[in-house]
Amino acid sequence: MSRYIVHQSDWATLAYTGNQSFMDGMPMGRVYSVSDGTINNSSGVPYIMASPMDLSFQDVVKTKKCSLVMSLAQSDYCKKKIYDPEDPRCAQVTLTGEFIKLEKNDPEWNVAKEALWTRHPVMRKWHILVPGHNWQFAKITIEHITLLDTFGGRKYPSLEDYFNATPNLEPMPKSIHHSVITIKKNVIIDDEY
Amino acid sequence: MSRYIVHQSDWATLAYTGNQSFMDGMPMGRVYSVSDGTINNSSGVPYIMASPMDLSFQDVVKTKKCSLVMSLAQSDYCKKKIYDPEDPRCAQVTLTGEFIKLEKNDPEWNVAKEALWTRHPVMRKWHILVPGHNWQFAKITIEHITLLDTFGGRKYPSLEDYFNATPNLEPMPKSIHHSVITIKKNVIIDDEY
Repeated sequence: MSRYIVHQSDWATLAYTGNQSFMDGMPMGRVYSVSDGTINNSSGVPYIMASPMDLSFQDVVKTKKCSLVMSLAQSDYCKKKIYDPEDPRCAQVTLTGEFIKLEKNDPEWNVAKEALWTRHPVMRKWHILVPGHNWQFAKITIEHITLLDTFGGRKYPSLEDYFNATPNLEPMPKSIHHSVITIKKNVIIDDEY
Repeated sequence: MSRYIVHQSDWATLAYTGNQSFMDGMPMGRVYSVSDGTINNSSGVPYIMASPMDLSFQDVVKTKKCSLVMSLAQSDYCKKKIYDPEDPRCAQVTLTGEFIKLEKNDPEWNVAKEALWTRHPVMRKWHILVPGHNWQFAKITIEHITLLDTFGGRKYPSLEDYFNATPNLEPMPKSIHHSVITIKKNVIIDDEY
């Protein structure tokens, strides 16, 4: 279930510790677009693309420890099932660990790029339109998983179970925006219509 | 804009500091249903209903400092506008402050109850169906507001501006679940169909 939520989620809320001005030492949070792989391939590792101009990114690169929260309330699932967002059946997962900025010469840089740019094709354009933002890729190294998916309290799936699980790779719900994406030797082509 | 996001949001991600086992001192997060007032009345104060059996509630009641994150990505707005969840125009707000558990003899207890039970009618039933959960009401006392709603970086609206603002109280998007709610002398009647 954790892997399913992580793969289904196009975005997540990052909970981290602030490091500047009024935020210093405070629990802070910010929404980021995420991806744990291409549509048909889920790795379980959540990747983020952000700019060093973003104060949240600046802070969490320093304070490192963080949690990433994703809920099925983000999709239509809970509404269709008439589950309140706080109903435990409206499943949510919290991935707790470290925020790791990737280096450009790390092979994982391209893994993150492919994961994000296929699920968020517009991000490729940000790279072109606002290159001054010096976009970076980062990942959350998961240390603990907290899952709420039914009555009876939270569960703590092991990392082994989490990474061995095969999430349901059903096609994502269609968005209003259509993209046909082709990946060819690190070049991502997206045709929008 | 901050007040609009807060009033439109039926749920939010609470970022807080854990206080037990592996979570001790870690930035943690959890989704809660929220309400800042009845559908036609927005106070700007976010209320939460939770159980002392909930470990997140136990922790944040002790560690107090927290942030509540809400994004228009939770509604259909960003999808319709074709804004990626990380696009700053897909506005998000972070309310940073203290988590305050309300006491039953505090007049605000009933304010919180009315705010939550009108926006989340099913919560009234939780009170009846699982009374052993000893449901509590709580609020976030806002100290700082961080708003991302357009290009050019974050804004920090003052508390004065925030509480003086009148959010657009347009009818909420219709859910699949219909409720007609009547409030009469602290008694909330919801007729579902």
